[in-house]
Amino acid sequence: MAEKFVLIGTGNVAWHLGSVLENAGHLLVHVYDRKLGHAKKFASNYFNASYGDSKDLRDVDATVFIMAVADHAIAPLSQELRLPEDALLCHTSGSMPLSTLGYADTMKRGVFYPLQTLSKGVSVDFTLLPICIEAEDQSTLQLLKQLAQSISKEVVEMTGEQRKVLHLAAVFACNFTNHMLTISKNLLAEKNMSFEWLQPLITETIDKSLRLGPNHSQTGPAVRGDLKTLDLQLKALEKEPDLARIYQYISQHIIDTYSE
Amino acid sequence: MAEKFVLIGTGNVAWHLGSVLENAGHLLVHVYDRKLGHAKKFASNYFNASYGDSKDLRDVDATVFIMAVADHAIAPLSQELRLPEDALLCHTSGSMPLSTLGYADTMKRGVFYPLQTLSKGVSVDFTLLPICIEAEDQSTLQLLKQLAQSISKEVVEMTGEQRKVLHLAAVFACNFTNHMLTISKNLLAEKNMSFEWLQPLITETIDKSLRLGPNHSQTGPAVRGDLKTLDLQLKALEKEPDLARIYQYISQHIIDTYSE
Repeated sequence: MAEKFVLIGTGNVAWHLGSVLENAGHLLVHVYDRKLGHAKKFASNYFNASYGDSKDLRDVDATVFIMAVADHAIAPLSQELRLPEDALLCHTSGSMPLSTLGYADTMKRGVFYPLQTLSKGVSVDFTLLPICIEAEDQSTLQLLKQLAQSISKEVVEMTGEQRKVLHLAAVFACNFTNHMLTISKNLLAEKNMSFEWLQPLITETIDKSLRLGPNHSQTGPAVRGDLKTLDLQLKALEKEPDLARIYQYISQHIIDTYSE
Repeated sequence: MAEKFVLIGTGNVAWHLGSVLENAGHLLVHVYDRKLGHAKKFASNYFNASYGDSKDLRDVDATVFIMAVADHAIAPLSQELRLPEDALLCHTSGSMPLSTLGYADTMKRGVFYPLQTLSKGVSVDFTLLPICIEAEDQSTLQLLKQLAQSISKEVVEMTGEQRKVLHLAAVFACNFTNHMLTISKNLLAEKNMSFEWLQPLITETIDKSLRLGPNHSQTGPAVRGDLKTLDLQLKALEKEPDLARIYQYISQHIIDTYSE
């Protein structure tokens, strides 16, 4: 069923959800941002919706209100919003519990968390992207499920506790892997070497990891227990103590993981 | 030009180099391993070469002798090998300098380091795989270059110092990223969640990182300076102090990298 929805917030997550939900036949009717200019730009550049910085949304003709704001803003903002009767209010955060919406102006509260790293303007295939949903009652859950299923094949009900761990796991799998690549690139740049040389290696590593499972595809000096190489590489990082520490603790954790 | 070559060692690197060099028209004539059984199995199961555990190789009719052994074995073994006149001896290590072969029974010494994570039996496209070469004189370098170019389009001359940094960069980009995925998988498994949910996220992260450069595609709480989420996630790792330490130091390094 096509829903009329409101976006609260104008960041990356809002942009992506707005786009895919409209593509799925839902209608973005209004955009709220505490900065009127942001709301205006977002609503008129990318969509065809009304906009405003007023927290009184009781006159907006919509059923679903999606908060895509910074984690710390969810609780205070949700208390200040005035919503139409029967409005469903959900947040899109991996780490915040459903109870963050506990003082909102509606009983229909939920979580709608798309598990992805979203950058504005870089389009993403949502159909394979897990969407994690949670609600306090069956009818709210049902509505969230319909909405999620209209854009993704992977809709997963989970508790806030599970979502928190999933988010943490995503930080390791995504944010930290990306930073390992940045460290690598910077090390090479210092010696005038090209990061592109490593690309076949990186692609092969990730392919193999997803195919065999990362715990079955670990290579390198740490898992081999090659202490001499570990020692040499640690010495090479002498002038960068922060990197040396990261090198040491990850290597030690690899050793511990595979010697248990 | 087709070369007759010898493999010294029977591990992953030996297996891969043997296969691709033979596919490129070179001929594996002999396999040495300090364990005769290993040499026999390797030479007869995978190739059609003679084998032995004797370090006296003076009668072997070959021009190139490739050492693919553990780093710590390179120096002592290279001193004990007896080679035919004019033999080229090279090692395949990222972290060991060319001078590790300083006491070898030949003046033609080189390094032939294929930058890849090789597992026996998993075939790899060598044509895009950088091969790093180094030698003391031009004719040896030329021979190594020909050999490398016969199997790869990316042949790079570099010093031992550069190779060491390249190897270190590969540990971060490959071994450590893989371990981040293992940590992630284990965190999920503890709460009965499937690592497969993260796969679209991981694929997208790496694609974006290689396309835009990892320093332009960092996402997550640390680069956003979202201290509240960092604090919450750190607390969630309370019972795993080793992971908490890794989480903390990588997050801090992300913050430092992007606030400079």
